[in-house]
Amino acid sequence: MTAEIITIGDEILIGQIVDTNSAHIAQELNKIGISVHQITSIEDEHSHILTTLKGASQRADIVFITGGLGPTKDDKTKPALCSYFDDVMIKNEEVLLHIENLFKKNKITPISDLNRQQAMVPSKAIVLNNKYGTAPGLWLKKGKTVFIAMPGVPFEMIALMELEIIPKLVKEFKRPFIYHKTIRTYGLGESAIAQRIEIWENNLPKAIKLAYLPGFGTVRLRLSGKGVDKELLKISIDREFEKIHPLLEDLLPNGLGEDEDISLSIGKLLISKKQSISLAESCTGGEIAARFTKIPGISNCFKGGVVSYATHSKEDILKVPAGIIKKHSVVSAEVAEKMAENAKKIFKSDYALSTTGNAGPSKGDSDADLGTVFIGLATPARTFSKKFEFGGNREQIIEKSVNEAFKIILKELK
Amino acid sequence: MTAEIITIGDEILIGQIVDTNSAHIAQELNKIGISVHQITSIEDEHSHILTTLKGASQRADIVFITGGLGPTKDDKTKPALCSYFDDVMIKNEEVLLHIENLFKKNKITPISDLNRQQAMVPSKAIVLNNKYGTAPGLWLKKGKTVFIAMPGVPFEMIALMELEIIPKLVKEFKRPFIYHKTIRTYGLGESAIAQRIEIWENNLPKAIKLAYLPGFGTVRLRLSGKGVDKELLKISIDREFEKIHPLLEDLLPNGLGEDEDISLSIGKLLISKKQSISLAESCTGGEIAARFTKIPGISNCFKGGVVSYATHSKEDILKVPAGIIKKHSVVSAEVAEKMAENAKKIFKSDYALSTTGNAGPSKGDSDADLGTVFIGLATPARTFSKKFEFGGNREQIIEKSVNEAFKIILKELK
Repeated sequence: MTAEIITIGDEILIGQIVDTNSAHIAQELNKIGISVHQITSIEDEHSHILTTLKGASQRADIVFITGGLGPTKDDKTKPALCSYFDDVMIKNEEVLLHIENLFKKNKITPISDLNRQQAMVPSKAIVLNNKYGTAPGLWLKKGKTVFIAMPGVPFEMIALMELEIIPKLVKEFKRPFIYHKTIRTYGLGESAIAQRIEIWENNLPKAIKLAYLPGFGTVRLRLSGKGVDKELLKISIDREFEKIHPLLEDLLPNGLGEDEDISLSIGKLLISKKQSISLAESCTGGEIAARFTKIPGISNCFKGGVVSYATHSKEDILKVPAGIIKKHSVVSAEVAEKMAENAKKIFKSDYALSTTGNAGPSKGDSDADLGTVFIGLATPARTFSKKFEFGGNREQIIEKSVNEAFKIILKELK
Repeated sequence: MTAEIITIGDEILIGQIVDTNSAHIAQELNKIGISVHQITSIEDEHSHILTTLKGASQRADIVFITGGLGPTKDDKTKPALCSYFDDVMIKNEEVLLHIENLFKKNKITPISDLNRQQAMVPSKAIVLNNKYGTAPGLWLKKGKTVFIAMPGVPFEMIALMELEIIPKLVKEFKRPFIYHKTIRTYGLGESAIAQRIEIWENNLPKAIKLAYLPGFGTVRLRLSGKGVDKELLKISIDREFEKIHPLLEDLLPNGLGEDEDISLSIGKLLISKKQSISLAESCTGGEIAARFTKIPGISNCFKGGVVSYATHSKEDILKVPAGIIKKHSVVSAEVAEKMAENAKKIFKSDYALSTTGNAGPSKGDSDADLGTVFIGLATPARTFSKKFEFGGNREQIIEKSVNEAFKIILKELK
């Protein structure tokens, strides 16, 4: 059971947007045992669409197509499908009704002929309801290959996958089981990890693949396997996961080494311990707060934060004494600690994290070198801080600061 | 002059990462007049790599390859290139020296044989220096087609493109000129815009393409053209841009309609007017602060913000009277306005934006419906707020709130 994804639209090819649709489709297919072997992005151009459809049909059982289903002149997918399937367009009354209802319910603008034209579909297609949009999904078959066309607007495509396509695939196809397990390590490079786990890697069962996924200061290791016996596959990958764990123990601040975002691990610990946290962010400028906000169920544990970008707001709101700032500079251990301590008091939280540093590009209110960052933590028992010298550009320095701050609070919570 | 991009690595095909590399490469190539006609993502598998290289060579002048150059067992690109070019690997002393220097300078871990192996390259390749990593870029030629292989780690690839590949392409190839201009509209759907600009669109010169790029509450319209005469192309697209402008005037809060992120427009206005802003964020949880922080040069204008996630922090830090919260509920116009007013006072800023609402999934401290959000703004002259009822999930509600907040302050600044 193999699939390919074809995305149609010039915006990906000129780099104007990043193709997040394919990642979502691949993830959802993986969960039901369908592997994606190729993703192809092509322009809105009739003959290129036809060649690509043909190529994909020779390699894959199912071909997913996104984009180019819209109502405007640059949308070429439906005419191309008609050519490929030697088909004509017919009006689908159900789709028309849906479009009219969508306009009645949601839109301020009146419905137009262009909108109504969205109800024209290839006559050989099974029509899939697009809950949130006017362009329906299309399911077509040629020989043994199934072609599924979806609109390129992400939230419409996501709903179509969830509500229509995945259930239909599950019903119609017998699929193997795919299982992945990923370990997230911090602190060593790809080669050093490879050396450390060499003997284990050489002895991996043939059915299990290992991939190294390097990131900023992290390397994720992914074990994957595919098979008909779900239980056997799971046992065998879990067993390898158990074996690799002691080899990497010092590189796993998350403890279990599961591939969970570190902010989520923190959130879970806080929620389970019924403890709370607050923030005093200078150089990270709200980025830590924004990450905490994304954790489901965090609202009782995340009390809030102060983004004290200007020096005077460190004095006025966080009550860092002007003398400390003057004596030690605004980028200093003393200021980081005072910020954390006072945030903890102001927000009445159990913990408080603080950041102060110079992420560039200019030096700002401080004489600190570019990349110098202090991270402070106030806990129920004590307050401390750590100094970092990060390399990279502004964005990278902020990202690294956020990661280190998360590591510090996670270590303390455990 | 056409190019294709091939990304190698299972992580894209299982949806574990999103392919941002291709977007970057495409953008950079576009700037120097090279169009990308296809992007293909395939797994780390020898024969699939070979077939894909062959296919691309038949369509493109230049084939870019990313990924699979690492030192570990799952990296298959170099052996595949050797097969494809009927080549052998040789040790490159310059690369070896570079790797050793990298380890001397940056790494805590000692250099290993695996690291040293990165100096083995196909003998027919021109080696391109990877400033930030151990895997060099490779430049190979077969017939008329140039193949350029780069590591998949984004910051290494970005530096290689900038420092080595783009300069070499510019030197070696005669290229046409590509020009894009994008207008960002707010408030109308794709079809409604298409109808409004139909006559203009039908009269577009053949050499100019129009694309509709719908987003959350925005539609971007992109004009593109390609030609040898840079000036002529620019004049002709700029002229169309001028013509479309009056047709869309009410949909362009950015005024000029240039495709600039709205936060950047706000930042520029604040900087030029030497005015300052602060924030009091509840339901947006630091997201607005994080966006402001990313604007270069904003530090004198962005005073900071309070993320008042817990109700008591609205009382304690933002000094919203408990009586107002009790009387009107924490999600109300009155609270949004008080938050903005007090943030303006506390941070001593000219403007202050506030958000309070229910982004779900649970109701939190308020009885407000899911999706109800109040956005407040305090200006030097007055304080007001607007109520919104957003649909969608938590992430979408936050995103829409941020966008509306930006629109409110932008309108006020102008």
